[in-house]
Amino acid sequence: LRATPSRPKLHAMSEPDFQRARTPERKAERRAAILFAAGDLLDAGGPSAATLSAIAAKAGVVKSGLYRYFESREDILIQLMLAGIEGVVTAAEADAAALAARGAAPGYPGRVARAAALVAACFAGRPRVCLLIAEMAPTLERNISVPGIVALKLRMLPLIARAGGAIALAHGALPPTAAALAANALPPLVAGLWPMANPGPAVAEALRDPRLAGFDQPFETSLRAAFHAVLLGAEAAAQPWAKSQ
Amino acid sequence: LRATPSRPKLHAMSEPDFQRARTPERKAERRAAILFAAGDLLDAGGPSAATLSAIAAKAGVVKSGLYRYFESREDILIQLMLAGIEGVVTAAEADAAALAARGAAPGYPGRVARAAALVAACFAGRPRVCLLIAEMAPTLERNISVPGIVALKLRMLPLIARAGGAIALAHGALPPTAAALAANALPPLVAGLWPMANPGPAVAEALRDPRLAGFDQPFETSLRAAFHAVLLGAEAAAQPWAKSQ
Repeated sequence: LRATPSRPKLHAMSEPDFQRARTPERKAERRAAILFAAGDLLDAGGPSAATLSAIAAKAGVVKSGLYRYFESREDILIQLMLAGIEGVVTAAEADAAALAARGAAPGYPGRVARAAALVAACFAGRPRVCLLIAEMAPTLERNISVPGIVALKLRMLPLIARAGGAIALAHGALPPTAAALAANALPPLVAGLWPMANPGPAVAEALRDPRLAGFDQPFETSLRAAFHAVLLGAEAAAQPWAKSQ
Repeated sequence: LRATPSRPKLHAMSEPDFQRARTPERKAERRAAILFAAGDLLDAGGPSAATLSAIAAKAGVVKSGLYRYFESREDILIQLMLAGIEGVVTAAEADAAALAARGAAPGYPGRVARAAALVAACFAGRPRVCLLIAEMAPTLERNISVPGIVALKLRMLPLIARAGGAIALAHGALPPTAAALAANALPPLVAGLWPMANPGPAVAEALRDPRLAGFDQPFETSLRAAFHAVLLGAEAAAQPWAKSQ
């Protein structure tokens, strides 16, 4: 049952609309419109384009109204990041399940390559979330309250656990502790590799110098290679003879 | 033989001195004073404290005079980063040589742990260079010319090669290709882990929540663990049965 069935539906996305959302459905709608606007601005113009004013204007909300839904601009971007990570994890789970349904995992070392390729493709297909993961620790987390950060990290934990499950399924023979180790390595790997693989125009031009060929790797290639090493390391660490580590 | 033995020595660090440095020695001295001033400001107040004006004032150089030595503020920080990386590599070489002199490397898995601990300690003892590596791709490289970036990357190549040599020496049984693979992984690992391990006050407070214990690792611990996995991966990738990768 809707609380206010007679209220006319407002279209927050199509035109400025400064009326306050009063029902839970309208609030959820408004919140989604703000996130959608921020995501659009981010995709089109990078983090500097996603200002509070631009987000408010695009979502059809007064700027002060944003604070009814989010703590700050950084909170909006953090919520987009969480939604994006959930998207990556859900895609990885689906891809891993499809691989598993197709038959037994290949033997060593093919299973490691398969899991690394799957994870790298899931991130590389979602540039927005990679960018936001790279921005998380250096900038976004600097303007969030302590309860906001606790909530963010508590939402990260099950997502990392699900990522570990997808990695183990794609691999086919990875112990759960090794899968968790590998999944935990993903946020810093993505954060470290994304800015290096997406340089500004001057760096991109410089890297055309044949002496610098080793620095010029697409993000998917470098993430796949790095995560391949991490997976091999996680496998090796799970071997009985490595237990003294 | 000094070119101008009779010229009185000026002390660029101790007081403002707006005289132009004319001999190669005086130019080198002035350049060093600018780098020293920038490093001091960075250590005391972070990147936001190392503005061009503050660097010029501290080095006793007029602001426009900085451009005789460096392209931009970012160029100054990049040169500091290169000097810092050279410091890390030199320390790693010395530590690895000392370990090697003490006797044979331990067997597996101790040799991997030894190399990972050595590398992590060399970086963790030099917070300035870790911070600058983290700033390199997202901010510093965005305000450097194409020739400046080519020069930077060409200076990075032999440093990464020397890091690989130190890692191989500390490890005791790592093939050169595997050592190179591991050394190449260090810049993105440091860039990804440093901001996460050095959060602002709100994140630091949030991570005291016992449910979030897994996120609260010192930089040295997380770099050692991540690099340990990378080394195991590099070792495994160098095995004959992994060659199809």
